[in-house]
Amino acid sequence: MSTQRIYNFSSGPSMLPLPVLEQAASEMLNYRGSGMSVMEMSHRGKDYLAIFDETKADLKRLLSIPDTHEIIFMQGGATLQFSAVPLNLIGKTGKADYAVTGNFSGLAAEEAGKYGQINIAYSSGDRNHTYIPAQDELKLSSDASYFYYCSNNTIYGTEWKYAPETGSVPLVCDMSSNIMSVPVDVSKYGLIYAGVQKNMAPAGMAVVIIDKTLAGGELPFTPKLMSYELMIDSDSMNNTPPCYTIYMLGLVLKWLDAQGGIAGMSKLKAEKARILYDVIDESRLFTGCAEAAARSDMNVTFRTGDKALDDLFVKEAKQAGLETLAGHRIAGGLRASIYNAMPVEGVQKLAEFMRGFEARNRK
Amino acid sequence: MSTQRIYNFSSGPSMLPLPVLEQAASEMLNYRGSGMSVMEMSHRGKDYLAIFDETKADLKRLLSIPDTHEIIFMQGGATLQFSAVPLNLIGKTGKADYAVTGNFSGLAAEEAGKYGQINIAYSSGDRNHTYIPAQDELKLSSDASYFYYCSNNTIYGTEWKYAPETGSVPLVCDMSSNIMSVPVDVSKYGLIYAGVQKNMAPAGMAVVIIDKTLAGGELPFTPKLMSYELMIDSDSMNNTPPCYTIYMLGLVLKWLDAQGGIAGMSKLKAEKARILYDVIDESRLFTGCAEAAARSDMNVTFRTGDKALDDLFVKEAKQAGLETLAGHRIAGGLRASIYNAMPVEGVQKLAEFMRGFEARNRK
Repeated sequence: MSTQRIYNFSSGPSMLPLPVLEQAASEMLNYRGSGMSVMEMSHRGKDYLAIFDETKADLKRLLSIPDTHEIIFMQGGATLQFSAVPLNLIGKTGKADYAVTGNFSGLAAEEAGKYGQINIAYSSGDRNHTYIPAQDELKLSSDASYFYYCSNNTIYGTEWKYAPETGSVPLVCDMSSNIMSVPVDVSKYGLIYAGVQKNMAPAGMAVVIIDKTLAGGELPFTPKLMSYELMIDSDSMNNTPPCYTIYMLGLVLKWLDAQGGIAGMSKLKAEKARILYDVIDESRLFTGCAEAAARSDMNVTFRTGDKALDDLFVKEAKQAGLETLAGHRIAGGLRASIYNAMPVEGVQKLAEFMRGFEARNRK
Repeated sequence: MSTQRIYNFSSGPSMLPLPVLEQAASEMLNYRGSGMSVMEMSHRGKDYLAIFDETKADLKRLLSIPDTHEIIFMQGGATLQFSAVPLNLIGKTGKADYAVTGNFSGLAAEEAGKYGQINIAYSSGDRNHTYIPAQDELKLSSDASYFYYCSNNTIYGTEWKYAPETGSVPLVCDMSSNIMSVPVDVSKYGLIYAGVQKNMAPAGMAVVIIDKTLAGGELPFTPKLMSYELMIDSDSMNNTPPCYTIYMLGLVLKWLDAQGGIAGMSKLKAEKARILYDVIDESRLFTGCAEAAARSDMNVTFRTGDKALDDLFVKEAKQAGLETLAGHRIAGGLRASIYNAMPVEGVQKLAEFMRGFEARNRK
């Protein structure tokens, strides 16, 4: 049994910072003299509320969330937000605009169709979601209750480099796969949400950041726990929240702060992505899947063009301690997800492995 | 900073078995040679799927779940099930029967009222939920889509000692606070669910056990992730499940199995409860809150009748390493929650403390 930790390029759940895991392990039986694990604490007890409040305060500070916006912790990951967003927001006009630039924004638009009239403001499906539309290509409706997009497309490896301008129509964004990796002007957004299992914490929660003026208009059949207004009013504690996940998020935020916060992560993210894209651009074996201008710094997608060779790559990489490099089943090819917790050394090791693999397999 | 673990009588989240926490801590950085924490694993990877499948198989075996029923893991705790149950099941006739014997069944009935016509088959509100109705007191409707009850009332400290007979109307039960503590004939139930944070795992999930023939009739506006049919078809993996919570549940189930399974827990539960009820019955200071026939073995509610003395009890108990003994804010008084993971020694220590407190404070 190996005692060695591997570099895990999974698209999520994904790596967590080693110091965070070490701290979680050391506090597992007895959190700072409380005599309890965080898992065992009443969510309404003093010890736990201190963790909860500090995590929220750190998130607010690190993301520069203005007082106009509230942070909510909700269960159900990003997928439950596919429903929660229209349930809460589409009632205003009965309509919403969706930009479909990948699998998850497509699923979100489909789900929203249950609750109102959806205008597909753009679909990049014509070129297999390998690019991001420009601002002037978006077909915006002036009477949309909101405009929805997904800022980073995990499966196809593309990333929006700009926040769309939508005038008075509130901007809603699924930032599951690039939150906390790049500075965001939160004040521009009506609502931001992110499943936490990529860049923030273990799976089992979504962070929602909402302009408080948007809450309160949910459709009458909205499940109680999915009402943003109720969640704001109860400070995410209408029922027992996923306490340990919030604690882990808190530890990740402390680590992130010590690495220079979002600015530090943003610098690192660009550096890590550049290492891999340089290998791809110099390669005569590997081709990037996404168009260069739209490339994601979080999910680097590439392929050899030969399914058997892609499979060999995944297999040999695993033997070298570089895991979960197969592309998503609907896209195929190869993918390296390099979220905040992936060390530069892991990316360097992958780059080195790619060069070696090419030398061994180039025809 | 104390290194001593305390006895935590919280109503949930609540104590977890010490060996479970020790194992989780030891596997935190590297799960059995995988080079990863369970928190970091792709939910579709081989290592994680083995954990997932084994946990489901153990649950099925320990609860003797027949092949007619499926296990689903859902986020949102019990409260999201307050909505999911009617969203999925009430469409059959548009009506459902609810027995209200406490706070949570009351909230469930209220939420269900959004989705259909609710008949309150019984309410024990007339005597402040201190008792459980008899079978012949239930006002059953022959055209109900289902009959709903909560088998153990955490706040009031009462427990159903029988499963209601409802003929051809499917029985739906919230077993959040006594699941895995007593044998249950699952085949009698259309649906059983339980938030896991009391007797099974850390907070952030509900286990749903459903007769497969009941799935597929959800109302058209049901959020996708709340469709029992979709969750069955995707084996709880339409999106990323709360992976670590499921892993912790798996560890708890292994521990429970080693303690003699449900039969072992059931014996222990009766023994632990008897220790505390004996103190209460012999006491001239403490009075039990629930009527004797309805007393819960999981949540022992009692009071001195003097608010200041109750507060003193909570304070002094805490100093003695016995924590979270205040009653729920809507019930007041005192409450000792003694779920599966509470050791007999913890209960004995509390009994001893109660006797000492009485000796010091009896007028």
